[in-house]
Amino acid sequence: MLAAVARHGQLVVEEVAEPALGPGDALVAVRACGICGSDLHALVHGDAMVEMSALGGAPSPFDPERDFVMGHEFCAEILELGPETDGVAVKPGDLVVSIPVALTAGGIEAVGYSNTYGGGYAERMRVTAGICMKVPDGLDARRAALTEPMAVGLHAVNKSGITAGDSAVVLGCGPIGLAAIAALSLRGIEPIVAADFSPRRRALAEQMGAHVVVDPAAEPAIDAWRRVAGSRPLVMFEAVGVRGMLGAAMRDAPPQSRVVVVGVCMEVDEVRPMVGIVKELSIQFVLGYDPMEFASTLQAIAEGRLDVGPLVSATVGVEGVPAAFDALARPDEQVKILVEPGGPALPTAP
Amino acid sequence: MLAAVARHGQLVVEEVAEPALGPGDALVAVRACGICGSDLHALVHGDAMVEMSALGGAPSPFDPERDFVMGHEFCAEILELGPETDGVAVKPGDLVVSIPVALTAGGIEAVGYSNTYGGGYAERMRVTAGICMKVPDGLDARRAALTEPMAVGLHAVNKSGITAGDSAVVLGCGPIGLAAIAALSLRGIEPIVAADFSPRRRALAEQMGAHVVVDPAAEPAIDAWRRVAGSRPLVMFEAVGVRGMLGAAMRDAPPQSRVVVVGVCMEVDEVRPMVGIVKELSIQFVLGYDPMEFASTLQAIAEGRLDVGPLVSATVGVEGVPAAFDALARPDEQVKILVEPGGPALPTAP
Repeated sequence: MLAAVARHGQLVVEEVAEPALGPGDALVAVRACGICGSDLHALVHGDAMVEMSALGGAPSPFDPERDFVMGHEFCAEILELGPETDGVAVKPGDLVVSIPVALTAGGIEAVGYSNTYGGGYAERMRVTAGICMKVPDGLDARRAALTEPMAVGLHAVNKSGITAGDSAVVLGCGPIGLAAIAALSLRGIEPIVAADFSPRRRALAEQMGAHVVVDPAAEPAIDAWRRVAGSRPLVMFEAVGVRGMLGAAMRDAPPQSRVVVVGVCMEVDEVRPMVGIVKELSIQFVLGYDPMEFASTLQAIAEGRLDVGPLVSATVGVEGVPAAFDALARPDEQVKILVEPGGPALPTAP
Repeated sequence: MLAAVARHGQLVVEEVAEPALGPGDALVAVRACGICGSDLHALVHGDAMVEMSALGGAPSPFDPERDFVMGHEFCAEILELGPETDGVAVKPGDLVVSIPVALTAGGIEAVGYSNTYGGGYAERMRVTAGICMKVPDGLDARRAALTEPMAVGLHAVNKSGITAGDSAVVLGCGPIGLAAIAALSLRGIEPIVAADFSPRRRALAEQMGAHVVVDPAAEPAIDAWRRVAGSRPLVMFEAVGVRGMLGAAMRDAPPQSRVVVVGVCMEVDEVRPMVGIVKELSIQFVLGYDPMEFASTLQAIAEGRLDVGPLVSATVGVEGVPAAFDALARPDEQVKILVEPGGPALPTAP
């Protein structure tokens, strides 16, 4: 089958062996798989990712020096159930999504960051059948594939402790920033002030529920927030994830506010602890989601409360994954690119 | 009167004018005033302190280029009430403590970091009579003067959100670390693991209620915690306040734990945001206390629930303040030095 293989920091599209099903596995055909910004990092910073996983307590036997296939935002169709799958809730023909982990006798594997459980940048993959969630009838694979990144936004909002009466600033309107905006909007938070250099992303932020959008080149987000939020408590979501953003968020945050760090900065960064002290800031780092958050996100998308359609900026076939990675490095051009086996050779608007 | 004046980064002991009472002021005779680590910073980094105060939203008309008298951990005797003090709860002869702020028509002044409201490194000072708290009968000035730093520890513990069943690690057993340990102990937190390079401070940590004390040169605090705390949730208190400590705390903290930053690091510091992300750490910066925390700390000291006597490592007269600052730069030698007008010329064990 065709797969986009990560190999020594490069993506190589080639024929690879079909997945061999182990106990509990299902064979699935990928219908849509989002390309995540973390994958752009992981391709180049594979070692750092392994080190960080170890710090987080993950068993991670993942070796980025060996081949691996990324893609953890997948929606797929069950083709075949493997051994020891009696009683699972899904059957061949079902469209499913899943938290991207595989439960194996040897432990938990991170699907898409594993040498043995490849991700969705391929025609087919194997997943743990018992944790697949059936996509509700009427929801297409493209929208369902957005469950994973949108769940990240919901989790960030849950962990933020934000409550009615609080206001929010979201720095960065990439997919995760947009997911946070959508989750804040669903929770009724007002106002939500969103900042991004990209006009396209600012427009999407408004579609996701931001009340005010700003170009940080024209007006700092915190100034826009002061204009509209008055003295409401503030939770600031840092969803850019580049060096300097944490320190800038701490500098701009008003006293007693909270900064939620959802943007992934792999590098060493500088902060001034004294800035945090004098304002008694709290900083909450967040990662991922729990199964309930994943399931409720799928449900919100299926019911149309969460309209993720506008986030899909292009689709591409497996052979076009390298070109899609290149396109995502230019943030104004793309938001979420979905890999669809059999799709166009280059990223193409849906 | 005699005062230790901060002047261009130096302490100069000299005769200065008596405080002139404004509306609401009381003239007090300093009986004991603790030397705070922040004052060692402030003497050298006055500009940074002003900048930071401004960031925190303080009006701060304080000019560190002009003379000022530090000392905000004071216990004093009321000598005279100034104009517009009818109805205040204190009278001449009362021993009092107070939150070190002065309420004036022009705004709030930080007593001890003010060009007009000098602190307790002097024979006399003026304070806002209406916010003075009478020291309960039987409590001496030395112990009462410890109210302020001990309230910082209580506030840190309150802001930490620590609850029964959680465990604590306290990094650094200077006065603030010891205050945090005491507050944790009063709350019944168990185990409390405390780390300091100084044997003297480790012994005090045990007296304040630490269950395990470690020399970080011999065993990392987190390893000691693992030995004794099992899988209890952890709140880690960073009370060292030097470059690198925040990053080290983040590196050592287990997933889902909280780091409370109570140590004041004035410099730019480096952290790895990814370390926070993979472990979903939360970082709470804390500063100061509120009036209720101050009052309840005074009460706990008066009732003997909080035994602060052992923290006083020396007393010194006003003329010995410069020597006391020098002594505090050598952390194994001293813990809390109290300035007592009329006391010895050099720091002397009580």
